[in-house]
Amino acid sequence: MNPLQLWRHARLATLTGDDWGLVDDGALLTEGDRITWVGPMSALPEAGRHAQAHDLGGRLVTPGLIDCHTHLVYGGHRAREAEMRLNGASYEAIARAGGGIRSTVAATRAASEGELLASAARRLDALMAEGVTTLEIKSGYGLSLEAEARCLRVARALGADRRIDVRTTFLGAHALPPEFEGRSDDYIRAVCDWLPALHAQGLVDAVDAFCEGIGFTPAQTRRVFEAAQVLGLPVKLHAEQLSDQGGAALAASFGALSCDHLEHLSADGIRAMKTAGTVAVLLPGAFYMLRETRLPPIAALREAGVPMAVSTDHNPGTSPGLSLLLAAHMACTFFRLTPLEAVRGITAHAARALGLRDRGQLSAGQRADFVAWDLEHPNELTYWFGHNPCHRVVVGAQERP
Amino acid sequence: MNPLQLWRHARLATLTGDDWGLVDDGALLTEGDRITWVGPMSALPEAGRHAQAHDLGGRLVTPGLIDCHTHLVYGGHRAREAEMRLNGASYEAIARAGGGIRSTVAATRAASEGELLASAARRLDALMAEGVTTLEIKSGYGLSLEAEARCLRVARALGADRRIDVRTTFLGAHALPPEFEGRSDDYIRAVCDWLPALHAQGLVDAVDAFCEGIGFTPAQTRRVFEAAQVLGLPVKLHAEQLSDQGGAALAASFGALSCDHLEHLSADGIRAMKTAGTVAVLLPGAFYMLRETRLPPIAALREAGVPMAVSTDHNPGTSPGLSLLLAAHMACTFFRLTPLEAVRGITAHAARALGLRDRGQLSAGQRADFVAWDLEHPNELTYWFGHNPCHRVVVGAQERP
Ligand SMILES: [Zn+2]
Ligand SMILES: [Zn+2]
Repeated sequence: MNPLQLWRHARLATLTGDDWGLVDDGALLTEGDRITWVGPMSALPEAGRHAQAHDLGGRLVTPGLIDCHTHLVYGGHRAREAEMRLNGASYEAIARAGGGIRSTVAATRAASEGELLASAARRLDALMAEGVTTLEIKSGYGLSLEAEARCLRVARALGADRRIDVRTTFLGAHALPPEFEGRSDDYIRAVCDWLPALHAQGLVDAVDAFCEGIGFTPAQTRRVFEAAQVLGLPVKLHAEQLSDQGGAALAASFGALSCDHLEHLSADGIRAMKTAGTVAVLLPGAFYMLRETRLPPIAALREAGVPMAVSTDHNPGTSPGLSLLLAAHMACTFFRLTPLEAVRGITAHAARALGLRDRGQLSAGQRADFVAWDLEHPNELTYWFGHNPCHRVVVGAQERP
Repeated sequence: MNPLQLWRHARLATLTGDDWGLVDDGALLTEGDRITWVGPMSALPEAGRHAQAHDLGGRLVTPGLIDCHTHLVYGGHRAREAEMRLNGASYEAIARAGGGIRSTVAATRAASEGELLASAARRLDALMAEGVTTLEIKSGYGLSLEAEARCLRVARALGADRRIDVRTTFLGAHALPPEFEGRSDDYIRAVCDWLPALHAQGLVDAVDAFCEGIGFTPAQTRRVFEAAQVLGLPVKLHAEQLSDQGGAALAASFGALSCDHLEHLSADGIRAMKTAGTVAVLLPGAFYMLRETRLPPIAALREAGVPMAVSTDHNPGTSPGLSLLLAAHMACTFFRLTPLEAVRGITAHAARALGLRDRGQLSAGQRADFVAWDLEHPNELTYWFGHNPCHRVVVGAQERP
């Protein structure tokens, strides 16, 4: 148990209240892995005077960043496929050359646990270098019980090896594996059968599906959600990315933590999400890579008071990005989120998208996860882009090396 | 003078010939600051066996990156203005709050040389961390003889302090300073008068102007170019960004090194650039920030054989980006450059946009500027985005610390 520690000489952006929650010459007290007090140095409680003190050098300090939607664990990558596409190759030619998600499934199945761990670790290090302290990782490139379990074990191992909290999501219903070609209902039955076994191994924090014309139907999605419900596992959904399938309303009816993508979200979907307290996770990296033009209904979500999160959606096909700050920048540029909305989107609202209420703000009772930046104001987090202003990261009141 | 050095165990992407110019298990010999031999280890010349040897660990090695269009030196920044705009403030409200380019001019004029140096150095470090070995810096936020000279001296000082080659461009004709309101012809006369003095101080490698409806007219641009011509200085132009002013053809008639932006470039402009050997510099960061929809005529430029470069256009208003790799990624995503075109755009073609023929490829006679990457193939440079795969940078055959 960490003793009482004082983290002083910070410009805090607490993200409490309706604005940035700025505190000049601010300080934090922590005990164990929790924040016990936040405020200006001038109001430091007596106990703080005897705490072990750390100087933050007058830097901007925010909550640790939270990336709530990634597909970080997979074999191989698709740089050659991307190059072929930019060189003008047709989709048929790319498919003939073994491209597309099936190439990632094949490479993931062929990879050993050690190989998967090593490649995902390099990507995780890039995200962590930017101040990410909590990260979600989905399975979904194994698509067999054994390979899905392997990927989820890798996700757990990444979290155990490093000073970061990794949350796992089972996304068996991501794509149809080749051995189930033409038998998607059978595959969904298999996915539902695998879930209790994976859960029993402690590998599943939430359950997700890809509900789309090119993915699974709402009826199939419902079956996956029912299997999750039986086990008491929360659900999330890749919803309304390419078309309006009514997935958001379906997910909300299961009390989903989040619906993600949402370019084609309807007014009904928004109402259902609002009622259920479901978070809207925006994924501007995929929007960018796919050169989408249809925006998620930001104004309507804002109007309805649906919390919006922002994530990298890191994946080898449609979003090989490794910067959560860049995702926030793109959320401002493409989706016109305000800087405050975007920063909440990678902190408090991202936490809610993972069902976590103990992080994402700087206030007493929250986990002591925070970042000191070489910046003066939090609006700079979504102004500069393509560099890393992260100076120092503290996770559970321990400095990350 | 450096002795003979051998840089071995590299996967070279020489960028010579029509493709990546890959050499597996390749090596470079350098003497002084130049490359003297490039090839597979199996063909290493006898002399190489006695050279001081460095092991590149099997990594991908490319020429050093070249950022050929930046406005890196300025006072203050415009994060608050960007936040106001995203919060819905009108342009009038932003202008009333002192926003826009004039706020940067005021902050630049108010900053000391030391302050300008310190803030630009932080930005330069971010670019250098990604393997940039040659960088252009424009003036254009001082807009008085004294303040323009100060900014150009800062640019020179940045290059002297660090292992990077900085090229300076005088952009007095960037915007009309407030004291010349309504007297743009008088201002252009002043700009032309300042040029010989700045040149005499060794501060000017090239001359640029902003030819645009909201900038200066083609006739005014011509006067600036004539003043440059008298001094034997090469010219460049911010051309056809927001409208077709015929600036590219004008610049080409002066043998311009480059025309930059070019979203509204005409067929006539392309022909003139081709004839003059002028490089087309694409600036996708500004395209991104301004949410432009009109693309530069990439297919026509490609068809005509006009070399295309890619740059960050780093500036505090329309492109506060600090990653040349991200600019290359955006050139692929937004403009559909091929990965090879984009990588040439930040190496050999960027060099040509600066009038430099001694860098941008790995071949005998070129400067020994190169980067070792934690990647396997150069097509990954424009696949992943938002992280920094740069492992090691060598400039003039010396390792950068
Ligand atoms: Zn996803
Ligand atoms: Zn510019």
